Amino acid sequence: MTQRIRGVLSPVLTPFGPGLAADKERFIAHCKWLLSQNCGLAVFGTTSEANSLAVRERSALLEELVETGIDTSRMMVGVGCCSIAETVELTSQAVKHACAGVLMLPPFYYKGVSEEGLYRYFSEVVQRVGDTRLRIYLYHIPQVAVVSITPGLVERLLKSYPDAIAGMKDSSGDWNNTKVFLDAFAQSGFDVFVGSESFLLANMRNGGVGTISATANVNPAAIHKLYAEWKNADADEQQAKLNVIRDAFGKYPMISALKQTIAIYTNDPPWARVRPPLVELSSGQSEMLAAELKTISFRMPGLKRVNARP
Amino acid sequence: MTQRIRGVLSPVLTPFGPGLAADKERFIAHCKWLLSQNCGLAVFGTTSEANSLAVRERSALLEELVETGIDTSRMMVGVGCCSIAETVELTSQAVKHACAGVLMLPPFYYKGVSEEGLYRYFSEVVQRVGDTRLRIYLYHIPQVAVVSITPGLVERLLKSYPDAIAGMKDSSGDWNNTKVFLDAFAQSGFDVFVGSESFLLANMRNGGVGTISATANVNPAAIHKLYAEWKNADADEQQAKLNVIRDAFGKYPMISALKQTIAIYTNDPPWARVRPPLVELSSGQSEMLAAELKTISFRMPGLKRVNARP
Repeated sequence: MTQRIRGVLSPVLTPFGPGLAADKERFIAHCKWLLSQNCGLAVFGTTSEANSLAVRERSALLEELVETGIDTSRMMVGVGCCSIAETVELTSQAVKHACAGVLMLPPFYYKGVSEEGLYRYFSEVVQRVGDTRLRIYLYHIPQVAVVSITPGLVERLLKSYPDAIAGMKDSSGDWNNTKVFLDAFAQSGFDVFVGSESFLLANMRNGGVGTISATANVNPAAIHKLYAEWKNADADEQQAKLNVIRDAFGKYPMISALKQTIAIYTNDPPWARVRPPLVELSSGQSEMLAAELKTISFRMPGLKRVNARP
Repeated sequence: MTQRIRGVLSPVLTPFGPGLAADKERFIAHCKWLLSQNCGLAVFGTTSEANSLAVRERSALLEELVETGIDTSRMMVGVGCCSIAETVELTSQAVKHACAGVLMLPPFYYKGVSEEGLYRYFSEVVQRVGDTRLRIYLYHIPQVAVVSITPGLVERLLKSYPDAIAGMKDSSGDWNNTKVFLDAFAQSGFDVFVGSESFLLANMRNGGVGTISATANVNPAAIHKLYAEWKNADADEQQAKLNVIRDAFGKYPMISALKQTIAIYTNDPPWARVRPPLVELSSGQSEMLAAELKTISFRMPGLKRVNARP
């Protein structure tokens, strides 16, 4: 088995062109910049507006990214749909391309479903993909999916599929919840990523393996630095600095704020586009954000404007 | 403009064959039986497990149903996905087949989205479909979708698209909520269907146009009778009888209980299959349900077993 993916991953923002089509050029450029900052890729996550993309759009964009020769061992692919068939389709594609793993939402339409029902869902997916290279990271984001990944579910899945079930992303924002999973499963090789760098240091100190965080789209190098240096004496200080930047974005709708930030820092207004039901920041919000980022001396070194369609 | 669809519609259960593929034969037979009971079709609703089907499965099954020569003016098609592209694809297909309307969920992945964001979503769909025959019924089912259809949203959409926005299905189970929409919009030709026959009489007395109810899959004729006779002296009595039957199913997970009921009444066990994350009733639950339906002398006249694969 190859080394599992670890460290800092960015749920890559998906830029949109005119008519809201996915903007391949800006997307690929952003992926390459993130990799240059020691940041792995978690394409098609919540921050990527993946569920606002059609399955065939996700599939096509992944092909285009892979064709650039990108290192797929540094990439996790978001694949969780409501239907088994579509989740299997996207998962098989990622496995075929030797991606490091897939980030899998539970089926999120029906609410109040049983642990047994979720177990059957993930079991079907594992069996239908039927590939020993499959590494699933279960995606717990209850404030969005509402349907949860529970310790009982993980325990059953690990027992049945110890190789395929590789870990989870906990985006609950509840450290106590993350701790439950770490205490129960980390020692047996279940890799826990926290969904925000605010918990990165705590995660590393408790057996976790990194973070998959929205703000890694704009602040990857500093987050990676803490990941690499979490045993250093200044780790708490580094964490505090990361929190200041995270909090600056936390005052706004996160996805729109991150896209607006790239638009500002590359002087490229089309970057700010989002797909409905999301909306862009208002001009007032954008000005406030820009001012605040200036106040905290926020920078995005090496990020360049892409020559693409307006 | 042709007459709008009204009355009792069934969110048609989707039977599954071995390997959980959609079972075309049983599905078409069930649709025909429902129509024979004066019940219109609302294919691909929540009760249909539509979001557990891939978009291409829904699309293929609709083609197969239409090819049977079924009267599409008696049919509404569930089309709401999380992405504009997929919702447009399914909607355009329904419009092309002259279906009476489409039942459209709001995009249900992101939570806490703004009215403006939802307005933009539905606007994009209407404009991209770009067909004067389009009739959208907005689907309010907050306990499942979490994202809601609000009066403010309806008001804005009706102002912009008075022909395309035809009405709604209110599955909130909250009569006060239904009443708000009826009072605000029914007189201007906005057609409100209630999501349960429990509210059918109240809906008709307050300007509504019918019901799209899960239990219409098993009790269509009696529900239609109340729809046709709601001005009769015995209407309250009819409503009370419908409620007794509805309540019998309400004690169980509804979709599984309805499928189990058809399995029992046609002596056809495969009908009970559901797709994960749903699970079938346990054998204990099935026996209790069967006993209770016998106690209330429940019958499904004219329903026949289909000769299909086990």
